[in-house]
Amino acid sequence: MNNSPDPGATLRLYELVIDNGRPASPYVWRVRYALAHKRLPFESTPLGFTEIASVCGGRFKTVPIIEHGDTALAESWDIVDYLERSFPDRPALFTGPAEYSMVRLVDAWFTGELLRKLFGLYALDIHNAIRPADRPYYRRSREARVGTTLEAFTAERSVRLPVVREALAPLRVALARAPFLGGAQPNYADYIAFSAFQWAGSVATLPLLAHSDAILAAWIERGFDLFGGLGRDRRMQPLVEAA
Amino acid sequence: MNNSPDPGATLRLYELVIDNGRPASPYVWRVRYALAHKRLPFESTPLGFTEIASVCGGRFKTVPIIEHGDTALAESWDIVDYLERSFPDRPALFTGPAEYSMVRLVDAWFTGELLRKLFGLYALDIHNAIRPADRPYYRRSREARVGTTLEAFTAERSVRLPVVREALAPLRVALARAPFLGGAQPNYADYIAFSAFQWAGSVATLPLLAHSDAILAAWIERGFDLFGGLGRDRRMQPLVEAA
Repeated sequence: MNNSPDPGATLRLYELVIDNGRPASPYVWRVRYALAHKRLPFESTPLGFTEIASVCGGRFKTVPIIEHGDTALAESWDIVDYLERSFPDRPALFTGPAEYSMVRLVDAWFTGELLRKLFGLYALDIHNAIRPADRPYYRRSREARVGTTLEAFTAERSVRLPVVREALAPLRVALARAPFLGGAQPNYADYIAFSAFQWAGSVATLPLLAHSDAILAAWIERGFDLFGGLGRDRRMQPLVEAA
Repeated sequence: MNNSPDPGATLRLYELVIDNGRPASPYVWRVRYALAHKRLPFESTPLGFTEIASVCGGRFKTVPIIEHGDTALAESWDIVDYLERSFPDRPALFTGPAEYSMVRLVDAWFTGELLRKLFGLYALDIHNAIRPADRPYYRRSREARVGTTLEAFTAERSVRLPVVREALAPLRVALARAPFLGGAQPNYADYIAFSAFQWAGSVATLPLLAHSDAILAAWIERGFDLFGGLGRDRRMQPLVEAA
């Protein structure tokens, strides 16, 4: 795409919210962090799952969606690429193509391995946290995907919890040598991970992290403090189990 | 360390070789690729496992080891950091701290997940490929680590092979959008991965990749072609199973 919209046009972010009004999609949170990093103001339109087809002429099946002038985009990476391209005078999300490629690889691991495992823990919690009107659609589509009921899919989740915690090991290795995955400063890999923890923390009735997991717990706190506490919300569930 | 050795001093790389004379350690290969990337000539001293204690006054338990003037270092990341610091006029391995941090994270995943899984496939093949004099030490130390015989540890390896192949999925995702993990050009994340495939290919009696795994197979070919075919060797075993 080489269209050059008016950078001063209003940015609108369509975001999925749960029943308490909180945006909870891990992919929406990536865009929220990207917009904050780039110091870009935006207007938010909260949606439930079943309202996504009612905006932008039904072109998109998933959020996030952004509208900016004549442009409408879904898919968080497409949005991030668009923001980098369209606002070159704003703080860059990536220092260059090498960092960008590495973050894409980290995302391939994180999304393929960890988001999938988190869904295995929280699939039913998500159902119970979203708007009642969205629950039949969510249950039907997710149960078709996993091939069983949400209840059966998550019944053994406390048995699987140690496996999920172990799968976070690469983050601990990286965070033992630097305060953020990006090094001294957070980068988009941190935002990807914080977004997953925003998602989990919005719905979890089972804390993700062991009390002893000090490295990850401290990093998540640092992450939630970013951009004036963008990730802080008293409606969040505990991500770290009590001592 | 702030010592500034004569950049013109000879670089010596102590590297582990198997019985056919081929360097096969995945960590040695990382340094070989780093030296090639930086266009740094070096002298090689091949060692067997049981000879490591006989060099550098027995200071190091593992290879790679480099000597450069008065400096001697083991641990591939320490060596890479040293090379970047000591030869600022040579091609940089990293564009900056953000890419460096991302490669460290990729390495934490790759080493923790994939090298471990590859060892589960090839622990006995390694034994059978190394120098006869090294085998008793290797068997004793590795069997103590895994808690069983090398034979029992690898007996079910063909059952585990699909799990290992699946664990390579993030590489496929990244390589579907760019020719190298680093993007248009290989970076140190590629070198880390190619080094693991050098290791596997040096010893494997069970091909790692399915014949249908065209994305990974083509990328490994590109990798082995780098630096004038540095990774090519007719003593290599097939990494891709026959059609």
